[in-house]
Amino acid sequence: MAVKLLDTFDGAVYPVNRREREILGYRAYPSLGDIGKSVDLVLLAVPAPACPGLMREAAEIGAGAVLVMGGGFGETGEEGQRIQDEMVAICRETGVRLLGPNTGGFADPVNGLVASFSVSFKKIPPGPIAIVSQSGGISLILACMVENDGFGVSLTVGMGNSIDIDSADMIDYLAGDETTRVIALYLEGLSDGRSLYEAVARATRKKPVVALTIGRTDIGEFAKSHTGNLVGSYELKTAALKQAGAVVVDNSNDLIDAACAFSLMRLPPLADPGIGMLVGQAGAGLLMFDQLKLAGVNVPELSERCTAKIGEHLPAMHYISNPVDIGRRTQEEFSNILRVLNEDENLHAILAYGLYEPTALDPVKVFEDLDFRLDKPLIYGTAGETADMQDVCMKLAGMGIAPFKSPERSARATQAIVEDSRYQFRKSRYASEGVPSAPVEALPDGALDEAQAKRLVQGMGIPVPRFMVCRSRDAALDAFASLEKPVAVKVLNAEIMHKTEVGGVHLNVGDEEQLRAALDRIDDIDFGGQLTYLVEEMAGPGLDLILGGLRDPIFGPTVMLGMGGTMAEAMQDVSMRLAPLQRADAEEMLSELKTNVLFDGWRGSPAIDRQAVIDAVMAVSALMLQNEQIGELDINPLRASKAGVLALDALIVRRP
Amino acid sequence: MAVKLLDTFDGAVYPVNRREREILGYRAYPSLGDIGKSVDLVLLAVPAPACPGLMREAAEIGAGAVLVMGGGFGETGEEGQRIQDEMVAICRETGVRLLGPNTGGFADPVNGLVASFSVSFKKIPPGPIAIVSQSGGISLILACMVENDGFGVSLTVGMGNSIDIDSADMIDYLAGDETTRVIALYLEGLSDGRSLYEAVARATRKKPVVALTIGRTDIGEFAKSHTGNLVGSYELKTAALKQAGAVVVDNSNDLIDAACAFSLMRLPPLADPGIGMLVGQAGAGLLMFDQLKLAGVNVPELSERCTAKIGEHLPAMHYISNPVDIGRRTQEEFSNILRVLNEDENLHAILAYGLYEPTALDPVKVFEDLDFRLDKPLIYGTAGETADMQDVCMKLAGMGIAPFKSPERSARATQAIVEDSRYQFRKSRYASEGVPSAPVEALPDGALDEAQAKRLVQGMGIPVPRFMVCRSRDAALDAFASLEKPVAVKVLNAEIMHKTEVGGVHLNVGDEEQLRAALDRIDDIDFGGQLTYLVEEMAGPGLDLILGGLRDPIFGPTVMLGMGGTMAEAMQDVSMRLAPLQRADAEEMLSELKTNVLFDGWRGSPAIDRQAVIDAVMAVSALMLQNEQIGELDINPLRASKAGVLALDALIVRRP
Repeated sequence: MAVKLLDTFDGAVYPVNRREREILGYRAYPSLGDIGKSVDLVLLAVPAPACPGLMREAAEIGAGAVLVMGGGFGETGEEGQRIQDEMVAICRETGVRLLGPNTGGFADPVNGLVASFSVSFKKIPPGPIAIVSQSGGISLILACMVENDGFGVSLTVGMGNSIDIDSADMIDYLAGDETTRVIALYLEGLSDGRSLYEAVARATRKKPVVALTIGRTDIGEFAKSHTGNLVGSYELKTAALKQAGAVVVDNSNDLIDAACAFSLMRLPPLADPGIGMLVGQAGAGLLMFDQLKLAGVNVPELSERCTAKIGEHLPAMHYISNPVDIGRRTQEEFSNILRVLNEDENLHAILAYGLYEPTALDPVKVFEDLDFRLDKPLIYGTAGETADMQDVCMKLAGMGIAPFKSPERSARATQAIVEDSRYQFRKSRYASEGVPSAPVEALPDGALDEAQAKRLVQGMGIPVPRFMVCRSRDAALDAFASLEKPVAVKVLNAEIMHKTEVGGVHLNVGDEEQLRAALDRIDDIDFGGQLTYLVEEMAGPGLDLILGGLRDPIFGPTVMLGMGGTMAEAMQDVSMRLAPLQRADAEEMLSELKTNVLFDGWRGSPAIDRQAVIDAVMAVSALMLQNEQIGELDINPLRASKAGVLALDALIVRRP
Repeated sequence: MAVKLLDTFDGAVYPVNRREREILGYRAYPSLGDIGKSVDLVLLAVPAPACPGLMREAAEIGAGAVLVMGGGFGETGEEGQRIQDEMVAICRETGVRLLGPNTGGFADPVNGLVASFSVSFKKIPPGPIAIVSQSGGISLILACMVENDGFGVSLTVGMGNSIDIDSADMIDYLAGDETTRVIALYLEGLSDGRSLYEAVARATRKKPVVALTIGRTDIGEFAKSHTGNLVGSYELKTAALKQAGAVVVDNSNDLIDAACAFSLMRLPPLADPGIGMLVGQAGAGLLMFDQLKLAGVNVPELSERCTAKIGEHLPAMHYISNPVDIGRRTQEEFSNILRVLNEDENLHAILAYGLYEPTALDPVKVFEDLDFRLDKPLIYGTAGETADMQDVCMKLAGMGIAPFKSPERSARATQAIVEDSRYQFRKSRYASEGVPSAPVEALPDGALDEAQAKRLVQGMGIPVPRFMVCRSRDAALDAFASLEKPVAVKVLNAEIMHKTEVGGVHLNVGDEEQLRAALDRIDDIDFGGQLTYLVEEMAGPGLDLILGGLRDPIFGPTVMLGMGGTMAEAMQDVSMRLAPLQRADAEEMLSELKTNVLFDGWRGSPAIDRQAVIDAVMAVSALMLQNEQIGELDINPLRASKAGVLALDALIVRRP
């Protein structure tokens, strides 16, 4: 079937088959070696066990790459894994590149090359949207959705098991491809998240990347059966993608809608782009406005000057604000008001909605007849009969206007171009900001106790309470005398994991009697070894956070910030990023917490020192990045108040 | 224009115009009275001030109803409101019914009647989907979306200002309409939420209702300019709709997708319908599975017998579980596996996905050639070229199979039919359960203090701590002696709203010295009147909830349950219902809380007595319903533990 698909391809095609001399009109060769010409790509449509041998043959004739579509490899079990490992070794050894195995192949409609088992790819029109999908099936589904929306594809590829060429390679390639204006990415599991992250970060400097991934729920077993990869944490995957500058969406429809919009427009880097809204149907305006506000998109008030100008064109009964509700007005009025919005400096893109009613408002005519230059990207939502819509949407897209067939789809596409603009802005700030450096101190030998962990944290600039390590009861009494009361008295031993549960933590110790009782209780811990006491000053009230670092097997060093306390833990109110991160990322982490209103001073309590929290996040980022001995770091709680932060407990786990 | 639209209508049409004798080929009459025949519907396309007079004329000739499409009424300000009020009075006085004003009108494609200013309505095909929209524009947009998806409409109506006929009336009408199989409802603000709630509750006993509303963010000002209604609380509107049995969706696309599915299928009432999944592309399966699991839809494990049977049809490399991943198999295999799922008693509907690849799998052929009767509703997701898709989807729908053009759209439509089935089941349990009755005690005179509020709450069966009201320090000392220590000592005065802030609450009072200090502090409150003390036993540890009742201006008596504590309040972790509610509703309220895992025993703490919480919710429901003097009731906190619940504080505000 692959051969049949190749009939749309202009270049030379050589079927290889041991028995046949001719296949579908092409001369067939008994082996790769018999072709005797240079070959760019070898497509293998043979059972898995035959692949390694043929890959060697391909390498021998100097083929540029091999595509293995069939399954039966790492995704199926041990024997498949063995064959797959051999194929990886051949790639390393011979330098031949491999796409797959276990993929649907790819289609390059621009060059008429369909290297896939699916005939459906033949119908995909060429265009500026590139699709990189871990799943072959999804690469095809997404390409069909692009075609359904009247757009075209530069390349759509199913990555399959990605044992050699992976999504990161593909994104790097597409970032430099001139036909491609936007990359739509579908990800399942990953083996090397860090290289993907870096490729996406490189690509978004040149063009928008929109990404969809799975794993919001526990579907790991099914996913592993598909491409042999672990799904990984959805939160970490999406955090990494956003951090790299990709717009992350929830479903395939939003992925394609955003890609279609990006194929026509991209905002420059802006801190918070303003959207002007112009609607012919107030109900549609409400649905879009609600959606944009929910997504935190800035729909600014119009300037007085702007409002006054619009007032010249609309009767008083209209809602002249942002959104502007023009009702069922004429083309001239629509055009006049659009001109006003186009001139407003606080607006960076325009979202318009109007039913397609040729006798009242035909958007094609409106935009064809504009008597001014539309400077801002425009997204136009509309509705009408199927037959009309195809024509209208095609013509609008032809004029660079992104058409959508529902209010909310228009609004979500607008949200996507806003997010991309903000991410670009955030990344543009990176350039002027170096990565903070941390002293790379070797960790002390053995497991680290709380005091050692706190000193390391303190060394990075995160304040800790004043504390003393006491190796005897007398030392503890002396410490008590010299510290500000009340104090906390804790058992200090790296081997005791759950200090509180064994009676090893005593808070608010205010007098010597309480101190002795606490020491007694600690001495009762049946541990066997020598017990040491940690005596430290109690912190003042504040908001308890959890700040941590983890060396993730897929993404490498990461930083996590969460709200502390039972409730926040119960709803997993956390935000994650890859290290190194920049202050803008750390700021975003704070804003991402669902309970972030607590930072602003809740119910009369004073506002938290956000900068101190951000400093602490940056310190953990630097520590995780630069001290490779650390596997995991937990500051729980990090007490934050208007006076700053204090690490009340710290745990460091050495990298295994 | 209205007249032009009426040319598709079979009945008699009489244009009325003071000047013209003939309009578009119809004889025109100078006034309504001159027609001299009985008239069902009068369409007024005149300025607002002329409407009241013409409504009286319409009433005089015995017209069944009047439709006023134009604006300029309550939504524009005082003068418009005056005209609107006069029109309401005419309706009441003469009995003539009014649709509008400020609406796009309606279309009844089944009878060819287009009573609207929009020509687009002429293209809407007849079918089983009814659209009731507060906004005229949205009624048209939704009808276009139905047409775009290849389905048809029984009635689409824009309600506008709804000053006489409202959405509730329309839903009641459509519930009895034989052509209509599903009602799609778009709501903005509401004046009488209770009657809408009741109409939806009646309708869902007969057919599914899908609803979309706005107001997740603060868009009230724009919304009020549209139909003159307040938006109201999004949470309460959606809670009421779900309680009534409507499936609530997030956007217009989901609304129409669900309506299209319901036009072909409805599950019977089931506690938790099981969905069988069958996919040709694993990637699509993952997207759908993730979506269903996120929505809490039951995708049960297949029985061993079922798995074994499927194994007979599929090679070992496939994922034979639920979802079943059949890969790119033949029609015969697809059909064989479908038969197995069709026979599985744990499955109530089937969600299938397959790319449209005529050479591999053509769903139309599959379902045309089935050699067994498909007993379960089936939703089929597919992708392909635009031209093919129109034909394939139409044919599938013709066979009763709901077709969707993306994995997630298929999954969300499945979610909708599951929710409807569960809601039906919940409502079927109502029948066997009476509304609990509460003694209707008159409230004591004046504002209620904490002790009075607690006694009322206790009278309804919600336990409160043992407490004593003490009118002197001696009485407080006596109370302290007789109660279990430690106690809480509070100032008792209905006029003091914030007891804690003024130093009026003292917890953990364990000895007489502490008691005297607490009483001193309370005596210091500069209040002017006689202070009374409340001395009560401290409660044991537990989970603090907030339980309340509110007489809402739009929906009447409501019940609210929320998680207590700063974090939960910061993220507004609450669930609401209208009173009266049933135990099944109260159970749902607990499950709806984002932090509901805390009920199950968090991190080793014992599980909460859910039944005691539900009892308390039911008690508040009964109290709000039956004691109409109560405007607001707050139990904050309601301490819940494995031993039950205790109302630690209670506040009752009299209805104004």
